[in-house]
Amino acid sequence: MSTWLPTLITKTPEEGYDLAVKPARMAIKLTQPGRDVRDRVRPVYAEDAEALIAVASDVATHLATVAAANGFWQDVA
Amino acid sequence: MSTWLPTLITKTPEEGYDLAVKPARMAIKLTQPGRDVRDRVRPVYAEDAEALIAVASDVATHLATVAAANGFWQDVA
Amino acid sequence: MSTWLPTLITKTPEEGYDLAVKPARMAIKLTQPGRDVRDRVRPVYAEDAEALIAVASDVATHLATVAAANGFWQDVA
Amino acid sequence: MSTWLPTLITKTPEEGYDLAVKPARMAIKLTQPGRDVRDRVRPVYAEDAEALIAVASDVATHLATVAAANGFWQDVA
Amino acid sequence: MSTWLPTLITKTPEEGYDLAVKPARMAIKLTQPGRDVRDRVRPVYAEDAEALIAVASDVATHLATVAAANGFWQDVA
Amino acid sequence: MSTWLPTLITKTPEEGYDLAVKPARMAIKLTQPGRDVRDRVRPVYAEDAEALIAVASDVATHLATVAAANGFWQDVA
Repeated sequence: MSTWLPTLITKTPEEGYDLAVKPARMAIKLTQPGRDVRDRVRPVYAEDAEALIAVASDVATHLATVAAANGFWQDVA
Repeated sequence: MSTWLPTLITKTPEEGYDLAVKPARMAIKLTQPGRDVRDRVRPVYAEDAEALIAVASDVATHLATVAAANGFWQDVA
Repeated sequence: MSTWLPTLITKTPEEGYDLAVKPARMAIKLTQPGRDVRDRVRPVYAEDAEALIAVASDVATHLATVAAANGFWQDVA
Repeated sequence: MSTWLPTLITKTPEEGYDLAVKPARMAIKLTQPGRDVRDRVRPVYAEDAEALIAVASDVATHLATVAAANGFWQDVA
Repeated sequence: MSTWLPTLITKTPEEGYDLAVKPARMAIKLTQPGRDVRDRVRPVYAEDAEALIAVASDVATHLATVAAANGFWQDVA
Repeated sequence: MSTWLPTLITKTPEEGYDLAVKPARMAIKLTQPGRDVRDRVRPVYAEDAEALIAVASDVATHLATVAAANGFWQDVA
């Protein structure tokens, strides 16, 4: 697990977005380490509108962090 | 998918707002890749007040990020 | 729709607050474009404590953005 | 209503906190302008743990804004 | 009540954390001033996972504010 | 308990993430000090998608704080 988050720096906003998805998933993994349970829970929330939106909210918070880390990729614009 | 988020920089606050809506939707797409399921889930939350407000919350977080990226468009004022 | 958010800059905190209410409402409009449905949904959440508080949360996030855009109106104090 | 939020600047953190409570309440007032309905809704959420905590969340976001506006009252320390 | 939040400045991150818990509780107190009701509501949410996590969210927002106020205690490291 | 949060500074983003998980858990501990109750509540939310996502949200907020404290580990990149 030592290399899942080596840096917050990415070349582009898209890569930053992809990075922002990771810590959201990792938090769920840490709170529910059992793969079996996660596999059972996932299809439930993947069809639940409110859960999908809540996941999107976690990603939004992480994107804010990653974007700040990258100076908002202002030089990529 | 390589060009859906090329930059966080926009000319105006309105364009920034339109941009802020995108990552909110993309997060849902990534969590539920099945178009069929999304098409089934969408009409449900589109009529559900709490889900609508929750989507608005995701957009709000992204707008904060996009606004910061654009120096809050202070020179557009 | 090209002029609903021309700027984040306002003269006073109150005007900033009024501005912060707009993107919260716009997000709901974008997610549920049907005026009929919105008219049906609105009275429901307008009497639902949790929904009212959730709307207030969206406004809070937008006020943070608008306040930052305006240097927190420190010179108005 | 022109003077309910004249400034975000306060002398002390406590006054800042008192100020942070205001926009949270105002958002509810704007979304549900009917005093009768608010009077009916209020006792419900005032006894509902999740609603109380959600109100506290709105206040937390506003306190962050007010604190930033005041340079976190660092010179008051 | 004039001294419950004299400053946001603390010596250590831990003291900052303890401070962050206070405004979260105060918001609940302000919304529900009745001690009797609070005493009745508290045991309910103290056994409710979602409520516990929501309280933790309020604390997280306040810790962000307190940490910023203290320059993130970078010189304590 | 005097040493559970000695600093917000970490060497790497991963260590920062591990640190961000701590205050999220501590808030739950403070709100529900009874270990018995926590042990009873935990398995419930560990199988509840919405609770898992809500925990992830708390972690996201704390990661934002920890990342800011560490200058987003820009020199680690």
